[in-house]
Amino acid sequence: MSDAYAKAGVNIDAGNEAVARYRAVLPKQRDPRVLEGIGGFGGCFAMTGMRDPVLVASTDGVGTKLLVAAELGRYDTIGRDLVNHCVNDILCLNAGPLFFLDYLAVGKLDPAMAAAVVGGVGAACADNGMSLLGGETAEMPGLYQLGHFDLAGTIVGAVERAELIDVTRVAAGDAIVGLPSNGFHTNGYSLVRTVLPPARWSEPIGAGTIADALLAIHPSYLKAVRAAQAAGVSIRAMAHITGGGLVDNLPRALPSGVAARLYPSRWRVPPIMELAVREAGLDRDTAFRTFNMGIGFCAIVPQEQSSAATGAMPGAIVIGEVEPLGPCAPSVIFA
Amino acid sequence: MSDAYAKAGVNIDAGNEAVARYRAVLPKQRDPRVLEGIGGFGGCFAMTGMRDPVLVASTDGVGTKLLVAAELGRYDTIGRDLVNHCVNDILCLNAGPLFFLDYLAVGKLDPAMAAAVVGGVGAACADNGMSLLGGETAEMPGLYQLGHFDLAGTIVGAVERAELIDVTRVAAGDAIVGLPSNGFHTNGYSLVRTVLPPARWSEPIGAGTIADALLAIHPSYLKAVRAAQAAGVSIRAMAHITGGGLVDNLPRALPSGVAARLYPSRWRVPPIMELAVREAGLDRDTAFRTFNMGIGFCAIVPQEQSSAATGAMPGAIVIGEVEPLGPCAPSVIFA
Repeated sequence: MSDAYAKAGVNIDAGNEAVARYRAVLPKQRDPRVLEGIGGFGGCFAMTGMRDPVLVASTDGVGTKLLVAAELGRYDTIGRDLVNHCVNDILCLNAGPLFFLDYLAVGKLDPAMAAAVVGGVGAACADNGMSLLGGETAEMPGLYQLGHFDLAGTIVGAVERAELIDVTRVAAGDAIVGLPSNGFHTNGYSLVRTVLPPARWSEPIGAGTIADALLAIHPSYLKAVRAAQAAGVSIRAMAHITGGGLVDNLPRALPSGVAARLYPSRWRVPPIMELAVREAGLDRDTAFRTFNMGIGFCAIVPQEQSSAATGAMPGAIVIGEVEPLGPCAPSVIFA
Repeated sequence: MSDAYAKAGVNIDAGNEAVARYRAVLPKQRDPRVLEGIGGFGGCFAMTGMRDPVLVASTDGVGTKLLVAAELGRYDTIGRDLVNHCVNDILCLNAGPLFFLDYLAVGKLDPAMAAAVVGGVGAACADNGMSLLGGETAEMPGLYQLGHFDLAGTIVGAVERAELIDVTRVAAGDAIVGLPSNGFHTNGYSLVRTVLPPARWSEPIGAGTIADALLAIHPSYLKAVRAAQAAGVSIRAMAHITGGGLVDNLPRALPSGVAARLYPSRWRVPPIMELAVREAGLDRDTAFRTFNMGIGFCAIVPQEQSSAATGAMPGAIVIGEVEPLGPCAPSVIFA
């Protein structure tokens, strides 16, 4: 079989080696809710310890950030980008992560590369207190160029129904607390790669090179949010700032009838983002609906809790406030 | 923004059109457990109505069957393949489907093609009594050739813990009931495309062409299994026959100390599979560890319930039985 498949471009030995390497690099599962040893057709997770759970699930990819990783041959960070992106998405509903499943597709399977990618997925799962319950590595000759691959993943989390975010609790006067981004996270790379081609990636920027800045790992905001809640802050809504920037994502955390007024002078745009905006010739409005522009995550809190919130979340600042929506006004206003 | 992104190969208008088309082609969600209207960062599903649920999850792709679909420009069946494959996987643990999330990645987004693919996903979800809770469509210029795409998905199902399959209940003497396949399902296509190239796809085989046979939809065995259980059959273990065939998959439904004895003369190998085996020059042993060879799913039942099982499941036959594992003997024996 190996022989017939090898002629067709599928290397079964490489597949077996990749699985063996996954076992070596992945953290051991420590969550007793993961039921081991009951066959390999699906991962099993016992839904215990919750009264009235709502499952919150999301599937996402890392976009063409993976082409940056492929070009640089750096495979150990992209899995972390994927997991942290998904963690932040379901966090907007106040859900905590339960488990994750990854999908890695390659043209020709390189077990060391696959283990670096999946090792990053597993490490980020562990950092977020979540189990890697399953996954698929697909070798598809003819679909991907040599060195290219695709990576996607699915997160399943849960929240008690009574603690599910209800954006209608957001009211005019609430403070909008922003958490800093460290770069593009997983958004905008098709555009960024056009204006900052590989020939420029060795140029210095900030404390490293453009390459380093382009591969900066998408952070997870889970610990910051949980720290604020543990300090007694009642977070009314949250927004993960991804494709579409603050302009498209912050309104997802707002009920009808209110707008967000933001003060961009209060925070710093990462140097790599300023460079890309300049090279792409984007005006300010366009830049703010294209990139996160320095704010990776927003939490909306009662005004009187804003100090407690910024005190509990590293790097957090009050970036604006909720106000009544004016006639014909946009729902995000830059002051 | 559209302009800057368009130069980078990302068409935001096409993305919006795809989403609008998804709304038009997807069945309306009817499951009250799906909580609507609470923001777009994640799909929400209330875990109600179960006493002690175990979640069972699986991520999979459709492999290079999608290159057959792309070559033929037939996009409405591949989503059904994906969903039914995943349904069968978690069914092996006795889990029923709750919800699904899909991932479609393209080089250049064609909204009509994307809607055909995702429409197939949604239709199969509905057929299996499951909600399409979320998904991601990614346009990644530079990663896929024109007309190429990738499709993967994640299923989450559940089973009461007391009803979770426990393969240690399988014992020597049990009957192995096989359910017929209708072709390659979603396995073996890298090899099949090598030995049956597109130039031959218009040749007749069975009731249609080779193209038709290659795109035959992977069936869901959920209704058949539930019908048998409703008729009082106590299914002790199940196996979905995918990559690795009966040789690799049936042992996943067997405890240690027993083997499966199968009688291939009792069933028919689909003509398209016989053709591929001949063209690839595979011997019988290799063929049975490469393709499903006509059996798509197996259920292991007490011998005295085998008639009830075959009576309740369309096309089912007793294909073999469980026997004690002999010294140095393989765990699947073809008689």
